[in-house]
Amino acid sequence: MTTAPAAAVVSGNRLALARLLTEVEDNTAGGREALRELFPRTGRAHLIGITGAPGTGKSSLVNSLARNYRLGNRKRVAIVAVDPSSPFSGGALLGDRVRMRDLSGDDGIFIRSMASRGSLGGLAQATAAMTHVFDAAGYDPIIIETVGAGQGEVEVARLAHTTVVVEAPGLGDEIQAIKAGILEAADILVVNKADRPGVENTERALKSMLELGHPSRQSIRHHGESMQMGHEAMDPDVWIPPILRTVATEGTGVPELAAEIERHAEHLRRTGAWAERERQRLQAELESLVQQSLVRDFRERVKEEQYTKILGDVFRRVLSPWDAAKLLVDGKRR
Amino acid sequence: MTTAPAAAVVSGNRLALARLLTEVEDNTAGGREALRELFPRTGRAHLIGITGAPGTGKSSLVNSLARNYRLGNRKRVAIVAVDPSSPFSGGALLGDRVRMRDLSGDDGIFIRSMASRGSLGGLAQATAAMTHVFDAAGYDPIIIETVGAGQGEVEVARLAHTTVVVEAPGLGDEIQAIKAGILEAADILVVNKADRPGVENTERALKSMLELGHPSRQSIRHHGESMQMGHEAMDPDVWIPPILRTVATEGTGVPELAAEIERHAEHLRRTGAWAERERQRLQAELESLVQQSLVRDFRERVKEEQYTKILGDVFRRVLSPWDAAKLLVDGKRR
Repeated sequence: MTTAPAAAVVSGNRLALARLLTEVEDNTAGGREALRELFPRTGRAHLIGITGAPGTGKSSLVNSLARNYRLGNRKRVAIVAVDPSSPFSGGALLGDRVRMRDLSGDDGIFIRSMASRGSLGGLAQATAAMTHVFDAAGYDPIIIETVGAGQGEVEVARLAHTTVVVEAPGLGDEIQAIKAGILEAADILVVNKADRPGVENTERALKSMLELGHPSRQSIRHHGESMQMGHEAMDPDVWIPPILRTVATEGTGVPELAAEIERHAEHLRRTGAWAERERQRLQAELESLVQQSLVRDFRERVKEEQYTKILGDVFRRVLSPWDAAKLLVDGKRR
Repeated sequence: MTTAPAAAVVSGNRLALARLLTEVEDNTAGGREALRELFPRTGRAHLIGITGAPGTGKSSLVNSLARNYRLGNRKRVAIVAVDPSSPFSGGALLGDRVRMRDLSGDDGIFIRSMASRGSLGGLAQATAAMTHVFDAAGYDPIIIETVGAGQGEVEVARLAHTTVVVEAPGLGDEIQAIKAGILEAADILVVNKADRPGVENTERALKSMLELGHPSRQSIRHHGESMQMGHEAMDPDVWIPPILRTVATEGTGVPELAAEIERHAEHLRRTGAWAERERQRLQAELESLVQQSLVRDFRERVKEEQYTKILGDVFRRVLSPWDAAKLLVDGKRR
């Protein structure tokens, strides 16, 4: 550690950690320098993505899960809360305050909310950088909480080793409401608010969706076995996403969820999928940084007046956007 | 017109149009060439974005609206249906077939569903290119239908002159369920399925959200005037998003929606916002094409083995992603 911030973060200084997270989020030179130094110390934490539509009680579930990890002071837990779909909402900040009250006074939990970075790529990049800092600082697990079930959540879910998708009765009744994209990414499915009516319907809808997406599940039904027992009878290298019930506000089902998350981590390590996910994640991060760097170089290279002139030609529709892009990038038409 | 496809599309050949749309979606050389030729003929159509969560009856509303535009054969209507959040669903294709049945036999309507392009940027780019083709072929209006209310929909909504956000009773009760991001982009709000119970609640929730987002609306309430009457009393250059009720399956409220859409287009033209939106749209399109081109050049420049070696160093955590990006882009560290 040659810089003070990196050293302070590794030594467990919470204030230094909070400051560095801000620097990293703002992408300052100091933040990048500290990240470089911390990077060799990363790769230890279990990254858990938790995503679900608004109203599923996802934030309560994350809080309850974090408290569960803290039982007996066993683990230091980081929570990164991200809302990619509401650039203007400030909802993350509000959730943050509610949460601070819930989990306050526990030095073993660190919570950070992320505002949108204007673009999905920027958001995934900033979230990845945050997890590196927490990882190097010894937090494990790191919970990445995202709202919704769109493309943004799929991108953020790609950062995690284990992705938990949360539904609730009454929201998931319409089969359309469960997005295929996020279900493909789900390692564990949770029906939260399971004390509400309609829990069986939601569970049934999720099972049907899983059967569509996972041929291995279909074969279970074929042989007439119980769905719940399915995974013991299967190829141990194939992970069948389990469906769990929780009531987060009362903590019901949360220890079972933590156990399934751990079972998934063990599955990933045993099959080599853990290392594979790490590699995919780092490659995606590198490609995002390369793209950012290419755009920055381009901005420095192309003169403002040249850009404005070409853009004007496009506005008057005498130059097509395709020819304009060629001109700007290669300096010639077509 | 020097190429046959472009000329055939302009002359109204539906088969040539269908073929060109496929070429454009697949980003072939022929598609790009035809786009270049067609581009000077674009800029006439009114682009209407219609977005809403699954279950709001958005597709029925789009169909009903298209039929309304066709009354008396007045306008040729194009529909581009996009689902950015479900890369694997095939839902768009299913919706397409239902729709073909609904609107079949009318040569004045052309419907095209879009599969996700793998990335949001790619999707918005392909959607923009599609609208250019329809525009040059004389379709007006062009309806861009998107599912959901995430970042993806906001990006696609940016393509439109007029953005209609569809809600339905029972979905919008929770204030969280209405995403601030998409509401910011809304020019017109529709409560569809307005014959269902709970329509007043949904309308009230939308009004509260609008009051939060539009200070001008708040001032109306301040003066004790009716919200419904508000916009007549206001600065005519400020557009206050109206809230309409429809029952798309019966066509109820659809002529009124078409009238509001037209009123919005007139507002945009009068205030100069129409040209401003066109410029923003073309600039975003150009920047997306530039980015694509930069990445393609990079891929050609960097040798596969060099990339693999650097990526391996990142995997072993001896090189940070930030240093790796520098190395790849500039050929040197830091």
